[in-house]
Amino acid sequence: MFERTWTVRFSDTDPHGIAHYPRIVDALHETSDMFMQEIGFPFWELTGNYDFGFPLVDMRFEFEHPLHAGDDVRITLTPDPSTRAVRFEYDGFVGDDTLAFSGYEQRVCAGTSGGGAQEIPEEIRSQFVEYADGE
Amino acid sequence: MFERTWTVRFSDTDPHGIAHYPRIVDALHETSDMFMQEIGFPFWELTGNYDFGFPLVDMRFEFEHPLHAGDDVRITLTPDPSTRAVRFEYDGFVGDDTLAFSGYEQRVCAGTSGGGAQEIPEEIRSQFVEYADGE
Amino acid sequence: MFERTWTVRFSDTDPHGIAHYPRIVDALHETSDMFMQEIGFPFWELTGNYDFGFPLVDMRFEFEHPLHAGDDVRITLTPDPSTRAVRFEYDGFVGDDTLAFSGYEQRVCAGTSGGGAQEIPEEIRSQFVEYADGE
Amino acid sequence: MFERTWTVRFSDTDPHGIAHYPRIVDALHETSDMFMQEIGFPFWELTGNYDFGFPLVDMRFEFEHPLHAGDDVRITLTPDPSTRAVRFEYDGFVGDDTLAFSGYEQRVCAGTSGGGAQEIPEEIRSQFVEYADGE
Repeated sequence: MFERTWTVRFSDTDPHGIAHYPRIVDALHETSDMFMQEIGFPFWELTGNYDFGFPLVDMRFEFEHPLHAGDDVRITLTPDPSTRAVRFEYDGFVGDDTLAFSGYEQRVCAGTSGGGAQEIPEEIRSQFVEYADGE
Repeated sequence: MFERTWTVRFSDTDPHGIAHYPRIVDALHETSDMFMQEIGFPFWELTGNYDFGFPLVDMRFEFEHPLHAGDDVRITLTPDPSTRAVRFEYDGFVGDDTLAFSGYEQRVCAGTSGGGAQEIPEEIRSQFVEYADGE
Repeated sequence: MFERTWTVRFSDTDPHGIAHYPRIVDALHETSDMFMQEIGFPFWELTGNYDFGFPLVDMRFEFEHPLHAGDDVRITLTPDPSTRAVRFEYDGFVGDDTLAFSGYEQRVCAGTSGGGAQEIPEEIRSQFVEYADGE
Repeated sequence: MFERTWTVRFSDTDPHGIAHYPRIVDALHETSDMFMQEIGFPFWELTGNYDFGFPLVDMRFEFEHPLHAGDDVRITLTPDPSTRAVRFEYDGFVGDDTLAFSGYEQRVCAGTSGGGAQEIPEEIRSQFVEYADGE
């Protein structure tokens, strides 16, 4: 499991003082980016040094609890890899561990010059497995 | 059905020349805002003049086809209302009507000062029904 | 002069009901993108078909009047070209032609593979001149 | 002086692999938000607990050096207060302390219910002075 804290900012909030949901999606995407950096395969190096990426094919999120400016949201990311795809499962917690949202991004390993899904290279897959099992 | 065209901009695109998905989410949210304005109940008037809103509780999107800068994306929104909630169903088409993405936002009618879901006022619900049935 | 209307959305607004200024910057950048498309040299074609672009080197904006959700903002862009650079001058008006903001983006014509500023190709420069003079 | 590090993300970058400038503006605004939180007067508490805020009236930024995904940008904020306004001066550095951008946000202390500029309360002004002088 990968974990980071996201602080909701004034500029993320709406006239009710609640985070606009597109700003939550920004924070989720940032979390996937931080995770890929942590495991040594940042998205930007996939672009520059490899011939594949992990485009998003499916996403689902449920929002349980509103977020306010100043909230420190503990976001966890747990990868769930298959051979040619990986699901990033997310949970977001605020305050005394109240679930604010949960959901997933489904990403496929796909060549950047077309050709559809391909196998995730073992050195990346093994990192996904490690973070899937670990605490 | 409500329909608008969204042009993908250079500033929406990534190093592969493909739209960053959070920018697609921005366009979807903008579409819901345009729809509520069209039916005469813009989100900002709900905030100012009424005591309820339509917060998002669930969203799911599948991405079938990448979008590039300059693409004119025809986004359709079809509301599917129940008593206390409404699902906005979306499809996005590019070029010769290729499906680029589809999905939904599930929104509940909820009081802004708490108290949970409440019935959608009839004057709004009837608009949802009209756009659900129409072509 | 190029002109477009930007409608401020609920998702652009803050707890005071006023547009977050980074959302105004998004709208300004979108306006430059629409202008380049109108004159036949969209930013995304410069990237794909030419070996130069117009990166931003300087921007300044003054905000005179707050913007609210639902405001239709008339944004004008007047290009002011020199040999190797162009200034896009902006004004934004709301309601009964109240000035909401004004400012500029200074952009240089620069090769995408380095080498610094270069002359703006005549076919683009002539378009800038046409929009600079016209009403 | 207040300082934080902003990591440029894949989702901030354009087809040249360079950060879109509206994403840099997002990072600047986030920095002002972090600074106000650090001194004990976060923007969101001004909204909820006081009757004034610090709306932006003028901004200027010069961009010296492009930013790429993965860059760790050291952003410094130095407040320069007057009686009724404050200028936040910014510098952004990458790599071996190369200046990437510099500029300012000019903010006035203004009542949220209108009435124009007012004096900055002493407990906030003294914090601005402390960060202006300090290293």
